[in-house]
Amino acid sequence: MPVLVQKFGGTSVADASRIHLAARRAVRALLEGDQVVMVVSAMGDTTDRLVRLAQQVSRRPSKRELDMLLATGEQVSIALVAMAIEEAGYQAISLTGAQVGLLTDSAHTAARIQSIDVARIRRLLDQGLIVIVAGFQGVDRDFNITTLGRGGSDTTAVALAAALRARACEVYTDVDGVYTADPRLVPTACKLPAIGYDEMLELAGRGAQVMHARSIELGKKFGVPIHVQSSLTDSPGTIIMDPTPGMEDVVVRGVSLERGLARVTLHGLRNEPGLVAAVLDEIARRAIPVDDIAQTVAADGSLVTLSFTVQGREEGELRAVAELLTHRFHAGHLDLSTDLARVSAVGAGMRTHHGVAARMFGALAAEKIRIDHIATSEIVISVLVPAADAEGALQAVHQAFGLDRAGDAA
Amino acid sequence: MPVLVQKFGGTSVADASRIHLAARRAVRALLEGDQVVMVVSAMGDTTDRLVRLAQQVSRRPSKRELDMLLATGEQVSIALVAMAIEEAGYQAISLTGAQVGLLTDSAHTAARIQSIDVARIRRLLDQGLIVIVAGFQGVDRDFNITTLGRGGSDTTAVALAAALRARACEVYTDVDGVYTADPRLVPTACKLPAIGYDEMLELAGRGAQVMHARSIELGKKFGVPIHVQSSLTDSPGTIIMDPTPGMEDVVVRGVSLERGLARVTLHGLRNEPGLVAAVLDEIARRAIPVDDIAQTVAADGSLVTLSFTVQGREEGELRAVAELLTHRFHAGHLDLSTDLARVSAVGAGMRTHHGVAARMFGALAAEKIRIDHIATSEIVISVLVPAADAEGALQAVHQAFGLDRAGDAA
Repeated sequence: MPVLVQKFGGTSVADASRIHLAARRAVRALLEGDQVVMVVSAMGDTTDRLVRLAQQVSRRPSKRELDMLLATGEQVSIALVAMAIEEAGYQAISLTGAQVGLLTDSAHTAARIQSIDVARIRRLLDQGLIVIVAGFQGVDRDFNITTLGRGGSDTTAVALAAALRARACEVYTDVDGVYTADPRLVPTACKLPAIGYDEMLELAGRGAQVMHARSIELGKKFGVPIHVQSSLTDSPGTIIMDPTPGMEDVVVRGVSLERGLARVTLHGLRNEPGLVAAVLDEIARRAIPVDDIAQTVAADGSLVTLSFTVQGREEGELRAVAELLTHRFHAGHLDLSTDLARVSAVGAGMRTHHGVAARMFGALAAEKIRIDHIATSEIVISVLVPAADAEGALQAVHQAFGLDRAGDAA
Repeated sequence: MPVLVQKFGGTSVADASRIHLAARRAVRALLEGDQVVMVVSAMGDTTDRLVRLAQQVSRRPSKRELDMLLATGEQVSIALVAMAIEEAGYQAISLTGAQVGLLTDSAHTAARIQSIDVARIRRLLDQGLIVIVAGFQGVDRDFNITTLGRGGSDTTAVALAAALRARACEVYTDVDGVYTADPRLVPTACKLPAIGYDEMLELAGRGAQVMHARSIELGKKFGVPIHVQSSLTDSPGTIIMDPTPGMEDVVVRGVSLERGLARVTLHGLRNEPGLVAAVLDEIARRAIPVDDIAQTVAADGSLVTLSFTVQGREEGELRAVAELLTHRFHAGHLDLSTDLARVSAVGAGMRTHHGVAARMFGALAAEKIRIDHIATSEIVISVLVPAADAEGALQAVHQAFGLDRAGDAA
C-alpha cells in the first residue's frame, strides 16, 4: 500500500476542533487506501509560551535544556491527535522523535537529521494504525533530545516521506497554496496548481513564507512531491514537484517582494587581489548577511567599486559599519541607499526563453520606477526599487508576465 | 562521595521563583559535599490542565496516549530546573524517565518500576553535574512512555535513591513534616523528628496525606531514609526510617482520622462453610472496598453475625447493596450505620507496651464517646465513632498518649 505523510502545523492543531479536523483528514486518507503517517507541530502558540517560561527562569537558557523544554510542545500534540483518531474509532499511535529513531547531530536548537529508522513505523502501518510523529524533534547519539530549528516540522515530514518512500507529503497550513504573488499585495494573484522545487526554493528565499527552504531542498533531493494546502478547506492547494514538460512552458511562475533592504556602495577602492574577500570577511564577522554583491572596475583598472545588499538592519548601525569599511579599506566615497525593496520574478522557463529581462524592465519603465540594482540567475531576475514603489513594481511585473491568468496555465 | 536524592513536588516548582528556590537547595547540598540527583514533578496544576485538554478531545482517552501527554509535564519542569541551576553558575543536566532507563511494565497510567539503569546518572554525577530526573514516568520494553500513577514522583525518587545507594531521599513538599495528628484538627499536634516505615505506612493508609504508601514501602524494602520537609522553610522536617531503640520507647507515634465510613452488619446468617467468602465476593464484584471485617458466631453455633466497614459510598447505594446481600444470603436482620469516622492510634511501641487499648478506651469513655467497632493490629488500634464525635475523639486520644509533648520525645 502506498504511504502518505500528512503534516499539520501549529494552527492546524490549535484546539480540540482543529485536532478533530486533522484526525478526519488522516482517517479519510486511510479509508482511501493509504498508509498514513501524520507529522504534527506544537499547538498554536505553545512554543512561544515555553520560550517565555524559560526566559522567566534564565536570561540565557542552555540550548540542550531549551530543546528538552520545547520538545514537549509536539509531544502534547501527537498524544491529542492520537486520542482524536481513537475517538473516531480508528487505531492510532503517537511517537516522539526519539521513538521513531530520528537521529540528529548534537547541534541543539538547530540539529540536522542524520538518519531515520522507519522499521517501527512500517510495522505499525502494516498493522493498520495511523502513526502520529512529533515534528521538529530528534535525538543525538547520546540520546539527548534535539530540535531541528526553524521549519523543523516540515523537515521531519519530508524526511519521513523520503525514508518511507511515501507517494507524497501533504503539508496542511494556514495558507491554501502557493500564489503567483502575495495576494495581499497583488489582488489578481492566482494560486498555482504546481511549482518546481527550484522555483519554490527561490520564492521561499525571497519572501514567500509558505515553507522553509530546508524541507523543499530535502523534497528535491529525494523526489518527494510536497502538496501544500489549507487545513480548513478542501481546495486543492499547490504541489511542489519535479517540473514536467508542460510546467516548463511557463516563463515566470511567480513574483515576490522583500522589504527592509539597503545597498552599500564603496567607490574608489584600490584594485588589489583579495580585497573583496577582505571586505566581505569584515562584514561577516559582524554576522551581517549580504547578497547581490557586485564589483565594477574603472577603465584604467586601478580602482574598484564594490556594492552589496543588506537585509533588515537599522540605518544607524549600517552607516557605522559602512563608514568603518570606507576608512579601513581607503574607499574614496561611500553610498548608502536605505529603504529599498527587492522584486523578483522566478521561473524555470527563463532558462530557455529570451527577452524575459527586457519584458520586466519595460514594465517597470512604463511605471517610471527607478531601478537601483539588477541581479539575474538561471531562474530569477530581481531588481532593487525604492520601498515606496515596491507594490506598484510587483503588480507591474506580475501583469507583464500574465500571472493573473496563471491558475489556468499549468 | 555520598549521593543525595532530592524530590520536589508540584507546588515546589510551581513558578520561576520556586524553581530557583529548589535549584538553590540542590546547589547547597552539592557545595556541602553530596552528589545530587533531583526528582521533579510537573509544575503546579499542569497535570490537571493536560487531563482537561485530553477530555476536550476524547471522552475516554486511551491510557497509552494519556501517558504520552502527561509525561510532558515533568519534562517541562526538569528543563526549567536545569536552566535555573545553570543560571546560578553550576552544571546541570535534565533527563527524562526514558533517558535514565527507568524501565516499567506496560500498565499505562499505573506502571510498576522493573529496573533502573543508573550508569548514565553515575557518570554525570562523577563529572560534578547536578542531575535532574523527571518523576512519575518511565518506558516499557517497547520504548512506550509510561507513568507510575498516584505518588509516582515520590516512587521515582525513592527508587532512584535505592538504585544509587543514596544516603537519603529528601522529599520537599507543601507540608513541613509528619505530625502526631492533623494540626487543623488537633491544635496541640507536634511535628515528629522521626517515624518508622511501618508507622508511616499505617498513618498514610489512615488519612495522613504526607506521602503515598507505595514510596514508603519502597523505602522500607531498600532501607532508604526518607526526609520529608517543607520546600519553603529550613525547619528540619521528619525522617521516615528504620526504627532505632530510642524511637521504640514511644508507645504511640501519632493518631489519624478517616471520615465518610459506614458499617454494615448482617445478623442471623446461616453458619455454613464459605459463607463469608461468598458475601465478600459479592461486594468485591461491585468494586466496593471493605475493611475491618468481623464475624461472631451465636452460642449454639448455628447462626453468624458478619460486619464490615465501607469507605466513601453514598447511603442510598450502600443500603441497596446491603439489602441485596440480606436477601441473597437469607440474613435475619440488617444494621447499617452511616456517618462514622475512624480514629486510629499508630505506634511500633504497642508491640511491647501493655495497656495501650485500655488507655485509649478510657480516654474515649471520659468524653462519653460511643464506640461502634474496635480493630487492633501489631502497631494500630482503631475505633469507629460517630462522625460528630470524631474530632473530640481524636483530641482525647492524642492527649491520652502524651502526643502534645512528642516533639521533644523522639
